[in-house]
Amino acid sequence: MKKIKVGIINVTGYVGVELARLLYQHPNVELTSVTGRSAAGQKLSKFFPHLAVYDLTITPELGDVEIAFSAMPHKESAKECLPLLQKGIRVIDSSADFRLQNPQDYPDWYGFTHPAPAMLKEAVFGLPEIYRSSIKNARLVAVPGCYPTGAILALAPAVKYGLIAPGVIVDSKSGVSGAGRSLTLGSHYAEANEDIAAYGLDGHRHLPEITQELNLLDGSKNYSVTFTPHLTPMTRGILSTCYADLLPGKLSAGKKGMEELRQIYVDFYKDSPFVWVADASPHTKQTYGSNYCIVYPTISPRSGKMILFSCIDNLVKGAAGEAIQNMNLMLGLPETTGLAALPVYP
Amino acid sequence: MKKIKVGIINVTGYVGVELARLLYQHPNVELTSVTGRSAAGQKLSKFFPHLAVYDLTITPELGDVEIAFSAMPHKESAKECLPLLQKGIRVIDSSADFRLQNPQDYPDWYGFTHPAPAMLKEAVFGLPEIYRSSIKNARLVAVPGCYPTGAILALAPAVKYGLIAPGVIVDSKSGVSGAGRSLTLGSHYAEANEDIAAYGLDGHRHLPEITQELNLLDGSKNYSVTFTPHLTPMTRGILSTCYADLLPGKLSAGKKGMEELRQIYVDFYKDSPFVWVADASPHTKQTYGSNYCIVYPTISPRSGKMILFSCIDNLVKGAAGEAIQNMNLMLGLPETTGLAALPVYP
Amino acid sequence: MKKIKVGIINVTGYVGVELARLLYQHPNVELTSVTGRSAAGQKLSKFFPHLAVYDLTITPELGDVEIAFSAMPHKESAKECLPLLQKGIRVIDSSADFRLQNPQDYPDWYGFTHPAPAMLKEAVFGLPEIYRSSIKNARLVAVPGCYPTGAILALAPAVKYGLIAPGVIVDSKSGVSGAGRSLTLGSHYAEANEDIAAYGLDGHRHLPEITQELNLLDGSKNYSVTFTPHLTPMTRGILSTCYADLLPGKLSAGKKGMEELRQIYVDFYKDSPFVWVADASPHTKQTYGSNYCIVYPTISPRSGKMILFSCIDNLVKGAAGEAIQNMNLMLGLPETTGLAALPVYP
Amino acid sequence: MKKIKVGIINVTGYVGVELARLLYQHPNVELTSVTGRSAAGQKLSKFFPHLAVYDLTITPELGDVEIAFSAMPHKESAKECLPLLQKGIRVIDSSADFRLQNPQDYPDWYGFTHPAPAMLKEAVFGLPEIYRSSIKNARLVAVPGCYPTGAILALAPAVKYGLIAPGVIVDSKSGVSGAGRSLTLGSHYAEANEDIAAYGLDGHRHLPEITQELNLLDGSKNYSVTFTPHLTPMTRGILSTCYADLLPGKLSAGKKGMEELRQIYVDFYKDSPFVWVADASPHTKQTYGSNYCIVYPTISPRSGKMILFSCIDNLVKGAAGEAIQNMNLMLGLPETTGLAALPVYP
Repeated sequence: MKKIKVGIINVTGYVGVELARLLYQHPNVELTSVTGRSAAGQKLSKFFPHLAVYDLTITPELGDVEIAFSAMPHKESAKECLPLLQKGIRVIDSSADFRLQNPQDYPDWYGFTHPAPAMLKEAVFGLPEIYRSSIKNARLVAVPGCYPTGAILALAPAVKYGLIAPGVIVDSKSGVSGAGRSLTLGSHYAEANEDIAAYGLDGHRHLPEITQELNLLDGSKNYSVTFTPHLTPMTRGILSTCYADLLPGKLSAGKKGMEELRQIYVDFYKDSPFVWVADASPHTKQTYGSNYCIVYPTISPRSGKMILFSCIDNLVKGAAGEAIQNMNLMLGLPETTGLAALPVYP
Repeated sequence: MKKIKVGIINVTGYVGVELARLLYQHPNVELTSVTGRSAAGQKLSKFFPHLAVYDLTITPELGDVEIAFSAMPHKESAKECLPLLQKGIRVIDSSADFRLQNPQDYPDWYGFTHPAPAMLKEAVFGLPEIYRSSIKNARLVAVPGCYPTGAILALAPAVKYGLIAPGVIVDSKSGVSGAGRSLTLGSHYAEANEDIAAYGLDGHRHLPEITQELNLLDGSKNYSVTFTPHLTPMTRGILSTCYADLLPGKLSAGKKGMEELRQIYVDFYKDSPFVWVADASPHTKQTYGSNYCIVYPTISPRSGKMILFSCIDNLVKGAAGEAIQNMNLMLGLPETTGLAALPVYP
Repeated sequence: MKKIKVGIINVTGYVGVELARLLYQHPNVELTSVTGRSAAGQKLSKFFPHLAVYDLTITPELGDVEIAFSAMPHKESAKECLPLLQKGIRVIDSSADFRLQNPQDYPDWYGFTHPAPAMLKEAVFGLPEIYRSSIKNARLVAVPGCYPTGAILALAPAVKYGLIAPGVIVDSKSGVSGAGRSLTLGSHYAEANEDIAAYGLDGHRHLPEITQELNLLDGSKNYSVTFTPHLTPMTRGILSTCYADLLPGKLSAGKKGMEELRQIYVDFYKDSPFVWVADASPHTKQTYGSNYCIVYPTISPRSGKMILFSCIDNLVKGAAGEAIQNMNLMLGLPETTGLAALPVYP
Repeated sequence: MKKIKVGIINVTGYVGVELARLLYQHPNVELTSVTGRSAAGQKLSKFFPHLAVYDLTITPELGDVEIAFSAMPHKESAKECLPLLQKGIRVIDSSADFRLQNPQDYPDWYGFTHPAPAMLKEAVFGLPEIYRSSIKNARLVAVPGCYPTGAILALAPAVKYGLIAPGVIVDSKSGVSGAGRSLTLGSHYAEANEDIAAYGLDGHRHLPEITQELNLLDGSKNYSVTFTPHLTPMTRGILSTCYADLLPGKLSAGKKGMEELRQIYVDFYKDSPFVWVADASPHTKQTYGSNYCIVYPTISPRSGKMILFSCIDNLVKGAAGEAIQNMNLMLGLPETTGLAALPVYP
């Protein structure tokens, strides 16, 4: 079988390099082109010694491919993706540039005017667990942010089934790789190690994305999200602890209600091979290096508050793995193709 | 000046050994006796090489002291403390055995019937920022748990001033030393490293303590707490992210309300030398190894939710340092005596 | 194609569970039986949530398999393996029980008399890079220890080509998972985190294994090894920094000699797909989660001392991955089958 | 008692900020001036929230002080220190600018011509354990580098007593804070976490410093040092594992020789309050946050190789604490004044 040629724009960031790692395992596609500005002209294996198996040179421009993954930062990514789409290349964009449907969100949250607001309608939000069928024929997929992937998967069944009141708290704890490979004081080892702190309290850019999707799942409630991301001293992983008030009359009391809740989640994800519904508090380590997401819905026995957990690896299910999962759907392949590696534990 | 003799019951746990570290710096007291069952007969410096400066042997029973610190586990601690009190020794107990006022809480939460329920009335809850004057003359101080110290200091001013609705969420992130020195799979390095997870979802034992204190601060509202502790891959530190609904009419809108909120906190803690009111999201690292607590009250600009943060070192302000702070008050010394060491950063 | 049935004895330790993770990716074999004493009767996926994809129950005894992996501790492992061999099952043993050729080493280093000294002659030392051809027909393979795998791969070409004097220093830095899943104070999170220390200074059990193999590679010199393992605050990985004196007349001076040295290593490993010869100081992270070993030979420009580095993931190339690599050879499969996953970076 | 005014040049790096932390505890001096280029004009407590107790503003130039600590990088530091010396201010320089006696070492190792080679004769190498008496009257002290402090303290007694052959290996493992507060990829959290690697293999700048001092301790042997620093995933701490060949006839065989060796170390450091001679393998954690150095000399029982260990906190005994220890000597104070805080364990 001839392999399909794919390429990565900006292979030198953590999402790009993770795409290269994962694609090496894929039986149906071949990574034939990787770009990167500062590293152009270097061998990929020189820049990233753990990719020694690849014989590829980093180039300034993308070569001839059928599918392009963009791992560019927001604002820059749209500029790279739009010409490719015009050439007929299908694009899977890991940036935020096509995630938000309302063009006004771009100046408000990202500080730039969107260069192609019409494409916001066409772009498919690349969360396969919700948009599986639309993704199949998409030309342009906007891979969700890492926090939104975790938060939406934790909340979607409860929202879809109308279980919860519209004021939702998402308290997320992310590993430091989520901040990217660019150097910042916050991700300097001696600062981030042995430390935990919240950030983005004025409004993190993933907030509009989470809010948009909850309201698309259930347009009747006008969900409002309080989102508090925390930088956690680990490389990979996001745990989202989501709090919501259970609406009256939705679930039985006590143990029975908790079983009903669990069943709702099991049913919702029954066709989603990467989502596991746990029966105990999940650990980010249980997803390390893999494309799996573990969700765990529960009810605090004393306060009655719903607590909806999810764990993902922010670089895999939260970025590169999810991008490949989208690609599989776009190519008509089983969703798990090339992504079945189990979590690296311990 | 003659130094006051003090002793530590169960020096071999993390609270006990931290007491020994901190007391070495204290100008008014001398550590003259340390007990420990399994290690009895050994030199303290042999058991803990970082305490090489001490020439003390671990004994099975406490020697002649004026003040005894108990670092025994709950249930065992009361058995050790009660005879000492009868001998006229003032006791500072780091266990839970005298923290809860309602005797029924002991069978309900700790699985034993309290051996001296009358003492629950006499014991003073050793949170100096709130009970400073009662501590001065106390015979028996119950040092708060690590999570309650952080949660109560984060919430107290808001509760005292009646700002918030009674449904409170406390999402806490603790370093692994909070689980103690006893070996468990959860605190095995390869399990805890590169991992974050919630635990105690059926009801953590620090929940009744937090609830008791909030309702003592304001008896009119019947506060209910949803408390979710998380084990975080670091040795020391607790960050508590507390969520509450702001009651209407309490604060001005926007920036002005946030300044009023901050001023309420500054005023509340103006005589508390160990509590700093930050003006930015605090980091546990900013308290590492020290007795300081950093609080940061804010309001989420979009959802209007109040978010009240605190950071402490769980072994210092959350245990051993707070115990010594209580001792200072009991001895009529300045609260900061021997505790002024600044946080170890980075 | 019908898959070959394989089983794991003692799946509940870190080597056992890592075998289960890796075997899931293998196209030619199927894991059909897993044993574990304390966990017998439990679902594997209940015990290890990251293995949710497996529908296997842990049993006390091994079921019907063609190949058995033993992940039992030393002394216990031989007892499990010998009956299997008698039944005609091929055995890949990750313990030390068949690694040492001299029966006297077992009482000397492991404190027990070997139950089947004759098998020490038949067992093949499972380092494919050196014993590839013998492994193919082996009934019993003794997978090398994690430290010996790293140290021997770092030193083998230099030893084989007679470059170095026989006094060799191996200064190894290992992640904490190397100490296993059993609880010990040394691998308690709060003790191991933010700490590095040497251990085993009286003689680590991997010393006779390293010494045996160097002298088998070159029987003319009587190599003596000073081996200092260090516990390093990370979960996975071993970096071995090996020091040796370059013998006169073996390499050219300066840069040229370093190139000759590198070429000797490249040639030695040219048929070994899992060994990469780096041209810069290697990082354990560059092997994380994978079966790759990176070696880097160099000469200190001022002192002229040879420094021979290797990096491996102690649980993969140092244990479970190497076991599967042996199995591939035993089954006549390409060495890399099911093991081609790239290192998880960052 | 009037406190002596001291200042810190470049308070914004890790050595500078650590000086500020430690000086707060000092009873005889007062920190009255702190400089920093990029942060000039800011409150120290704004820049470093853990220093909230200080009411100091960062200035571009040093104010009126009796003693100045320079925490500038090399080359820049000399420029700052020389004018201060001319004004009669005593200077304690934590950079390399006055550590090396041979002016040629500066172009060779640091790439600049020394601006005041005459001062290299006057400057005292600030290792109190060796140069205590010269430090007392020094105008200019060059605080040793972090690695040299550890390596020299590990080796000095063996060198002084002529026990070892002149070819010495120093295999050091350092926490990441040793790389400073400037942002580099190597100290980016996701790169440094879960990783260990050697660096500086072409010749680390601390090598000439170690070599110089060993040869000053014993001028008869021409010591040659192979120095391999390793970046270790922890914030603070250096473990140095030093290997040397024991010269014949120097120590008795077996246990007796090890006791003689230990006694030589105990005697050598009997007047050095910050050096502890351990009787078991030391841990960096046993020095965390403190000015203590733990040394442990031993002999490998099989190979007979001498292994000389030391542990320090690189920012305290390896930099800021040692600087203050020097200041104490210069002021005629007990060496331990303000530095007696015990290590923060766990």
